[in-house]
Amino acid sequence: MEIFYSYDCDGRVCRLDGEEAAHCIKVLRHRCGESINVIDGNGTMFRCTLISDSPKGCEAQVEESFAGWGSHDYVLELAVCPTKNNDRYEWFVEKATEVGVDAIAPVIGDHSERKVYKTERAKKIALSATKQSLKAKIPQISEPVSVKDYIASAPEDALKMIAYCFEDEQHPRRSIRQVLEQNAEKARHSVVLIGPEGDFSQEEARLALEAGFIPVHLGNSRLRTETAAVTAAEALYFHNL
Amino acid sequence: MEIFYSYDCDGRVCRLDGEEAAHCIKVLRHRCGESINVIDGNGTMFRCTLISDSPKGCEAQVEESFAGWGSHDYVLELAVCPTKNNDRYEWFVEKATEVGVDAIAPVIGDHSERKVYKTERAKKIALSATKQSLKAKIPQISEPVSVKDYIASAPEDALKMIAYCFEDEQHPRRSIRQVLEQNAEKARHSVVLIGPEGDFSQEEARLALEAGFIPVHLGNSRLRTETAAVTAAEALYFHNL
Repeated sequence: MEIFYSYDCDGRVCRLDGEEAAHCIKVLRHRCGESINVIDGNGTMFRCTLISDSPKGCEAQVEESFAGWGSHDYVLELAVCPTKNNDRYEWFVEKATEVGVDAIAPVIGDHSERKVYKTERAKKIALSATKQSLKAKIPQISEPVSVKDYIASAPEDALKMIAYCFEDEQHPRRSIRQVLEQNAEKARHSVVLIGPEGDFSQEEARLALEAGFIPVHLGNSRLRTETAAVTAAEALYFHNL
Repeated sequence: MEIFYSYDCDGRVCRLDGEEAAHCIKVLRHRCGESINVIDGNGTMFRCTLISDSPKGCEAQVEESFAGWGSHDYVLELAVCPTKNNDRYEWFVEKATEVGVDAIAPVIGDHSERKVYKTERAKKIALSATKQSLKAKIPQISEPVSVKDYIASAPEDALKMIAYCFEDEQHPRRSIRQVLEQNAEKARHSVVLIGPEGDFSQEEARLALEAGFIPVHLGNSRLRTETAAVTAAEALYFHNL
């Protein structure tokens, strides 16, 4: 099933621009009168008929719309420190999108080796994985902020969790599965904060706990940052399966 | 924590060969008398003292041994069709090893585009991910066989599951989570069969069901082959968390 993304959809006509139009018209050779499937990136899929077929920009008339197409019934925000190796982060973006994530926040920790992160490629990967996994909503990828700023501005009413690796006798960690099961209602909007290769600093962990983050572990395996992030997405996925 | 792999461990002395010795002696500059951690690849980790330090091959004397180091208390075998893009399969091998898998069987399906698969690189990746995730047992990677041969020889007493995508009214699929929960005892030894991009053929699915495989789905998302395979490993991981 082919899916195109429209940057401009008013519910009657969807416009494909740049790459999408070129792919639709030039590569796949669709022509006026043919049926195509278009997502608006916000959760709706439209079955459309092409009404103009220039490879520089084409238009399709909406025949039928499907709100919440390929959606999941929870909201998951993953705040994850960029990995040293950029490919690994991009892999996480792809896989989390396939499994289900609503927002990805690249956050820079005290121990992060990578202090700068450009979101452009991640956004492209998220779009491509959204289409590939038959969803209509593209996860939002925000511009990087520090872990501390993220903690300070994290959504108040969400179930906020932080996965750090060090032992903390005062604040013993429970498994993410247990925390989700014990907070089923609140877990409908979950936030998971995942640190860099060198883990969070003690201060970051302290600030997170003060801000209401629950310390969780992801099981006994020592997971790489990107694997931990995907595993957190899988935890929500299975919790809601 | 640094981990070395020994191809030859008699419980008293561990021998490192080739790459491992070069890494230990040449790169990390360990010398006789120093302490190193060695795994035998079969589940035991040894705390050792180096007693010879040639970069072509070195020896370490066992001081203490830890059986079942980093192990999980279930057995998981993933039989997964190689993906068109080899990187994606290697990524699955790495991530499944981190999360926990005991055996990986590359299987070639009727609809597989890739009919040949060389296991050499996957074995290296499995070793590296085993060390990185602090485990002592390297998942076994078998030589490729056809899906049909795999089905015919799959372990009798395991909980065998097949994840295919097509609807089958006669054999409705349940979620893997539900099947694991309803077969908790048998699930201690689980097998999951994952098809290629083009899914299993109807005949493969029929043979699998006849051989006692239970049809499962992995949720509502359309997952790529490698994502499905990692998601199956995550299902077992969370089932046992």
